[in-house]
Amino acid sequence: MSMPKDFTFTDYKPYDFANRRHIGPSPAEMEEMLKTVGYPSLDALIDDTVPPSIRQKAPLSWGVAMTEREALDKLRETANRNEKLVSLIGQGYHGTITPPVIQRNILENPAWYTAYTPYQPEISQGRLEALLNYQTMVCDLTGLDVANASLLDEATAAAEAMAMAERVAKSRAKAFFVDENCHPQTIALLKTRAEPLGWQLVIGDPFSDLDASAVFGAIFQYPGTYGHVGDFSELIVKLHEQGAIAAVAADPLALALLKSPGEMGADIAVGSTQRFGVPVGYGGPHAAYMAVKDAHKRSMPGRLVGVSVDARGNRAYRLSLQTREQHIRREKATSNICTAQVLLAVMASMYAVFHGPKGIKAIAQSVHQKTVRLAMGLEKLGYTVEPDVFFDTITVDVGKLQGIILKTAVAEEVNLRKIGSTKIGISLDERSRPVTLEAVWRAFGGDFKVEEFEPDYRLPEELLRTSDYLTHPIFHMNRAESEMTRYIRRLADRDLALDRAMIPLGSCTMKLNATAEMLPISWPEFSEIHPFVPSDQARGYQHLIEDLSEKLCAITGYDAISMQPNSGAQGEYAGLLVIRAYHIANGNGHRDVCLIPTSAHGTNPASAHMAGMKVVVVKVSDIGEIDMDDFRAKAEQYADTLSCCMITYPSTHGVFEENVREVCEIVHKHGGQVYLDGANMNAMVGLARPGDIGSDVSHLNLHKTFCIPHGGGGPGMGPIGVKAHLAPFLPGHPETTRQDGAVSAAPFGSASILPISWSYCLMMGGEGLTQATKVAILNANYIAARLKGAYDVLYKSAKGRVAHECIIDTRPLAETAGVTVDDIAKRLIDCGFHAPTMSWPVAGTLMIEPTESETKAELDRFCDAMLAIREEARAIEEGRMDKVNNPLKNAPHTVEDLVGDWDRPYSREQACFPPGAFRVDKYWSPVNRVDNVYGDRNLICTCPPIESYAEAAE
Amino acid sequence: MSMPKDFTFTDYKPYDFANRRHIGPSPAEMEEMLKTVGYPSLDALIDDTVPPSIRQKAPLSWGVAMTEREALDKLRETANRNEKLVSLIGQGYHGTITPPVIQRNILENPAWYTAYTPYQPEISQGRLEALLNYQTMVCDLTGLDVANASLLDEATAAAEAMAMAERVAKSRAKAFFVDENCHPQTIALLKTRAEPLGWQLVIGDPFSDLDASAVFGAIFQYPGTYGHVGDFSELIVKLHEQGAIAAVAADPLALALLKSPGEMGADIAVGSTQRFGVPVGYGGPHAAYMAVKDAHKRSMPGRLVGVSVDARGNRAYRLSLQTREQHIRREKATSNICTAQVLLAVMASMYAVFHGPKGIKAIAQSVHQKTVRLAMGLEKLGYTVEPDVFFDTITVDVGKLQGIILKTAVAEEVNLRKIGSTKIGISLDERSRPVTLEAVWRAFGGDFKVEEFEPDYRLPEELLRTSDYLTHPIFHMNRAESEMTRYIRRLADRDLALDRAMIPLGSCTMKLNATAEMLPISWPEFSEIHPFVPSDQARGYQHLIEDLSEKLCAITGYDAISMQPNSGAQGEYAGLLVIRAYHIANGNGHRDVCLIPTSAHGTNPASAHMAGMKVVVVKVSDIGEIDMDDFRAKAEQYADTLSCCMITYPSTHGVFEENVREVCEIVHKHGGQVYLDGANMNAMVGLARPGDIGSDVSHLNLHKTFCIPHGGGGPGMGPIGVKAHLAPFLPGHPETTRQDGAVSAAPFGSASILPISWSYCLMMGGEGLTQATKVAILNANYIAARLKGAYDVLYKSAKGRVAHECIIDTRPLAETAGVTVDDIAKRLIDCGFHAPTMSWPVAGTLMIEPTESETKAELDRFCDAMLAIREEARAIEEGRMDKVNNPLKNAPHTVEDLVGDWDRPYSREQACFPPGAFRVDKYWSPVNRVDNVYGDRNLICTCPPIESYAEAAE
Repeated sequence: MSMPKDFTFTDYKPYDFANRRHIGPSPAEMEEMLKTVGYPSLDALIDDTVPPSIRQKAPLSWGVAMTEREALDKLRETANRNEKLVSLIGQGYHGTITPPVIQRNILENPAWYTAYTPYQPEISQGRLEALLNYQTMVCDLTGLDVANASLLDEATAAAEAMAMAERVAKSRAKAFFVDENCHPQTIALLKTRAEPLGWQLVIGDPFSDLDASAVFGAIFQYPGTYGHVGDFSELIVKLHEQGAIAAVAADPLALALLKSPGEMGADIAVGSTQRFGVPVGYGGPHAAYMAVKDAHKRSMPGRLVGVSVDARGNRAYRLSLQTREQHIRREKATSNICTAQVLLAVMASMYAVFHGPKGIKAIAQSVHQKTVRLAMGLEKLGYTVEPDVFFDTITVDVGKLQGIILKTAVAEEVNLRKIGSTKIGISLDERSRPVTLEAVWRAFGGDFKVEEFEPDYRLPEELLRTSDYLTHPIFHMNRAESEMTRYIRRLADRDLALDRAMIPLGSCTMKLNATAEMLPISWPEFSEIHPFVPSDQARGYQHLIEDLSEKLCAITGYDAISMQPNSGAQGEYAGLLVIRAYHIANGNGHRDVCLIPTSAHGTNPASAHMAGMKVVVVKVSDIGEIDMDDFRAKAEQYADTLSCCMITYPSTHGVFEENVREVCEIVHKHGGQVYLDGANMNAMVGLARPGDIGSDVSHLNLHKTFCIPHGGGGPGMGPIGVKAHLAPFLPGHPETTRQDGAVSAAPFGSASILPISWSYCLMMGGEGLTQATKVAILNANYIAARLKGAYDVLYKSAKGRVAHECIIDTRPLAETAGVTVDDIAKRLIDCGFHAPTMSWPVAGTLMIEPTESETKAELDRFCDAMLAIREEARAIEEGRMDKVNNPLKNAPHTVEDLVGDWDRPYSREQACFPPGAFRVDKYWSPVNRVDNVYGDRNLICTCPPIESYAEAAE
Repeated sequence: MSMPKDFTFTDYKPYDFANRRHIGPSPAEMEEMLKTVGYPSLDALIDDTVPPSIRQKAPLSWGVAMTEREALDKLRETANRNEKLVSLIGQGYHGTITPPVIQRNILENPAWYTAYTPYQPEISQGRLEALLNYQTMVCDLTGLDVANASLLDEATAAAEAMAMAERVAKSRAKAFFVDENCHPQTIALLKTRAEPLGWQLVIGDPFSDLDASAVFGAIFQYPGTYGHVGDFSELIVKLHEQGAIAAVAADPLALALLKSPGEMGADIAVGSTQRFGVPVGYGGPHAAYMAVKDAHKRSMPGRLVGVSVDARGNRAYRLSLQTREQHIRREKATSNICTAQVLLAVMASMYAVFHGPKGIKAIAQSVHQKTVRLAMGLEKLGYTVEPDVFFDTITVDVGKLQGIILKTAVAEEVNLRKIGSTKIGISLDERSRPVTLEAVWRAFGGDFKVEEFEPDYRLPEELLRTSDYLTHPIFHMNRAESEMTRYIRRLADRDLALDRAMIPLGSCTMKLNATAEMLPISWPEFSEIHPFVPSDQARGYQHLIEDLSEKLCAITGYDAISMQPNSGAQGEYAGLLVIRAYHIANGNGHRDVCLIPTSAHGTNPASAHMAGMKVVVVKVSDIGEIDMDDFRAKAEQYADTLSCCMITYPSTHGVFEENVREVCEIVHKHGGQVYLDGANMNAMVGLARPGDIGSDVSHLNLHKTFCIPHGGGGPGMGPIGVKAHLAPFLPGHPETTRQDGAVSAAPFGSASILPISWSYCLMMGGEGLTQATKVAILNANYIAARLKGAYDVLYKSAKGRVAHECIIDTRPLAETAGVTVDDIAKRLIDCGFHAPTMSWPVAGTLMIEPTESETKAELDRFCDAMLAIREEARAIEEGRMDKVNNPLKNAPHTVEDLVGDWDRPYSREQACFPPGAFRVDKYWSPVNRVDNVYGDRNLICTCPPIESYAEAAE
């Protein structure tokens, strides 16, 4: 049969993920956009934007890109290679039950997971409330005054506690005491962190080995990693007498039954809220907490949500005390923390709301009861169970039987903890069932039924908790699912996330987080694997990590990858530690100077300081490029002690600098290594490789370039890539072959979100990834072109191009119209947008990064809004609009404005429906402009009393 | 160790699903509420509400209620008992790929799935737009003028087409011609439906057997069930010449390549949109479509979305022509359709938006291409492939090899279709992969690679489609996932569903659809099972259906259950057919009188008529109870021909009638059967059993009492329970042992949503279900008590109690203040509520059913709103407020009202924030009051041209 003319088989690929789903502009749109930018083709634009000298030779390629369905099948097959046993390993990771209402409406809801960090408080009131609940929960359970909005994991939180102790202690000792009952990974991280800063660690039994006069602080684990429950009150008194600081790493579930760290006198408490409804996920992400005494709140690292008021005097939430620590200390900082684990903190806080104090207490009691039963059975079998009193964890010395018992347990589908060569640890949790206990007994040679043992308790009587917790009405709201669902929805609706509008945040790469990438992280075969299971139970994860690492190597030109760092800043720090270790191994331990351009992100100098380096600042020229003369001079000046330089590429000014290869050569010539900050990788993938340009190490923000969603301010992932010579120095972990240099609590960081980045790579293919980079550059140049005339782009290449983002100068408006960058940001809320990055890297500017995922229509909507704002400023300039009482100064406008009297010299229509704003679907800011000063002056960081709440739960 | 006093092990059960998650009021709240109602205890209230004579003796019980996690584990284990092979069985059910963005944001999003039918258009604009897209898609593909918003399944749609043909045909013939190439289940349903109405079915080859003069209509399948693609144009001309109607059952994907039914001249097209992204789900739910010529639109069954304007003249959507058919015809109706498959229609429409015409065409071509390749391979093996031209389905006569090939295919993990005893049918779909084809070839004894066959085509040249489709801009919007996500979110945000507020719809039981109940329906082990797989591949489903049936029998007191009816009305119809078959089997075929009280739901008489019965109406007393004298008289009068009575219990007036047992006795005495409408089962579960009271058959609305969400207007499930003597007459199906009496396309109706009801039963346990019923009654009585003085409750029991709902009389307000029930409903939108059921069963009243899932706070919010509305009416009564220009008449108020000039005699504040409305979290109606008359006068039922759309996809 001959084929009629109109029945040619089409080559249209409906399931082409890269070009049809991930990349925003359609081919027709791109054509129009290129016209606006002034190029005949995308490649012509790219050729003019990315210097030929840095372009990679071979195209990125690893076979055919998968469709969504193929990728999901591949992920499913990979997930099935993980074995889902019951893990009673404990050691900071416990089975937990994620309430389905939280799973579906938070973890699996783009309104929550695609949100950005709440720097713009007006459009973040929902997650700020959830985080305030979190902080309140942490304060209550720990008995301390102020808690932050979460840290990366318990081990880094402990390290932060140590660093903070050093900052605030009156004692000038340079040693820190570590309870030997701390989790091994915590001790490992403290070692990593202390060493470059020259702090000595003393590890031992606090009740016998602690010399309070010799340390600036100490940390105790409560309950200890082997189950011990100790009272540290007297030790803390001694520490305080010597001007030292006491930190307690505490399990929040245990605190439901036990005297709190605060009641023991501790200055700091840290720990993990993982077991509050967040799956173990082969190590993360989870929210770690930190709480401190009121006196220390301004020294606490991490983000802190506080209560303030808006322009109408209504209550509004915001991030408090944003000017602390890394912002002001930079190269003197002992913390580079800038990410939290917001999504997971929100989940944990909702778990507390879901259960309330009665529920949490019931769960804690039930876990304890089961542990007592388990111990009774083991004792009946003749084993000696340690310790005498415990919460959920016991240890049994089984001598030579260790191997056989562990193996039998695995045959019973239970993982126990191997301790040393003779002991076995067992930690129970809320998932443990009667059959679980019976399986454990069988592994130990017993054949009991749980009913044979009468419930008993073995908590230390003197440590039983008598104080209340979770007393705020939010933890007593009616806990019916209909109420929970609506509460979660109301909070979500207050916020603006990627599911409603673009978030053109320069340097943050807020791109599409595709559903197909997100689906697998809910699968139990990924989410319910304990990080310390025998490696043959995690073959799926291993394959995923290996393949993703290979792909990232291909993308970056590096030779090895470590997935351990679980944030970008952590990655920087880890990368610098690798360089440090390399120098030491080569007998160049004295090399400790780190060159950093003034334009660098604040975390760069902070990380360098933490890695024991001296920061030497290099000038940047007027057009945002590294001042080569100064760079050369500094490199030469410090030739003998040069450790490395830290550069960002494309630069933080949004330009592909031509001289990047030369920078690398200079550093290498003087014996240094090059750290290339991977924050801007989205402008390079497929076009240029850091490893080819001369860089030795980079971190990759998987939560930027590789599609892990920002989760409202975390989780993130910051793996590092290195050239071969640095590979031996990549972070180790107590649970892996190489044990030194751990930077995260888990060997592969937040492993359970790696499927997102892997799926992305699988579905894009090398070609798709390259195209994405090109379109990211097109989108940025399109915005620059459309805003031309209204705003000046601050930095461009010689050919007039920007990379994947552009900085527009709004300072002139401040002069001519008194319109600040803040006014513009708030007015953008009226238009239904999250503001671009404000005043970074240059004060008074906006850095716009559209990413490749935004369509022309959305870019146009944004440009229309920006152009209209310029016209409003012009009206002020020309005296047509009041200098103070105008839509820019009064932004964002709320329904409260509309409902009330209106005596403004512009109309309600003008106020609420500026160009860009949707009409029917308008996003309404829930509050007017938030008063920052008020919030910092009147610091309230736990839930304020709410008269209108009924205690409806009981 | 002795237990200290404050360390008693608590008996608080955090995972008690029934009392802590499903049932709204907490114990403390219930206590307060009981005080308001005036009872010392819940049981005292129940004793006064449910007549002792009908109370069940033994408590409902089947062991311990499961926690959410236990139920999910049980469901997982059950799901794993289904075997997930690749099914190429076709026969109306095809593999399809649900785009993840649609799965997550619609199917798994409570904003979509908990919505109600869009009877209140103002709060339903989102799903109305999605349904309008659906109707447009159907019109385009079928080439017809008007499409409804979906029907239950293809087979019932075909039956509806037949019934409609009979209504509109000029021919007075009483026979209907059925293409023998129709799917077997379609033919079965046509038989079921035709027989009681006395229509003769002529089944045959239309090209040889059709005598147009002898029929009122005909239906053809396109492509045929065995693959044939015929041109029916000439047959249709002949039918039209005889005044007969032509219907075509067409596969919408095939229509992307083939001449449309409209272009052939067909009057009606029906079919299933399942393969547009809706998983097969062991038979359903899916959206069937129906499209008709413009001339017939007012005779079309089902719901029809149309375009109208709101009070400001802005475009607004609504359900059009609501007064058609069953509303006006009742006992003369030949359709009882009142449910659509909204959620699935929305998914299918989004699939079309996601792919656009290019994508749909590409998918259709690719399916065809694969089928051609498959045929070429089989031909190479020496088989004769039928037919010569086909789309996606081929048939091979393999003689005696049938068994071995089918078995080998199963070993290759592929299901083929067994046709007769010598043939095998194969239907390919968009999921079919090269390995699938190769597996089929192996089953037929071949060993080929797909590459060996050059793509070819075998479509009939004269039937190649030349006309456009999906031309509206919505199908050309940019198809990036970011745009799709935001479009879906915008639509969702326009609507008010259970995830934001209670929906107190009398008789609709809008209770919690718990997440734990919903999670399993996304699992492929449930969603990807073809309805006609060999039964040993569906053991999970079988177990689920058996166990759920047992539980439903225990709840109802019946002896057998059929899961086949996939809506409540379908259940009624099926139940009456059972009674009919019973009478016939007993030689009482003449018994055809059905007694129905005037208060019955309109579907009752419609169903009775469809079942070939004569409806005799029985009076209802002033207090809403059946007039016993009249009932007795009618039963006596029709004693010889009495088939049955249809009653609703508790009555549609919301009261437990004392005399229900007597009613049943009377009917039985006169040789009749009792049909008890199960719509109000939520007031009975655990307290009383229809089967004990004297009823013989009931349908159960699983989408009311058993937690299947309403999905914005479907899916539903209406299984029927019967006493043992009726069990032999339950619906059969061509694919099951008993083949007669099919009422749905699939043997178990919408099987894939049964996990919802099953999980609910598992997690509630008998005790929890009973408590739920009690609290549902408490909640209704609480509302009645709180509204006392403001509104009269129309019907109460002798003891002053209502059952699970209450009807309040708003007619006095119409007289005194000109405030209609409509005004109250629209004003409730301002308060953030969906109105109660309006004007049913009594005009000018509101029927309020809160269900047990609503908390006291939410009930109070609703009562506050209702009381405030009463006060507004009082202000009108007392002349303090204008009779016309007042908040009730102008409701709902929108942002447009606020932004514009305000010259009303009440304030903006009063307009927008009446009691009940949230402040920050207020729900804003996207449109002002919708003009119903305008919409019906200017009927537009496809997407209107939208100038502002850019064709952004290409």
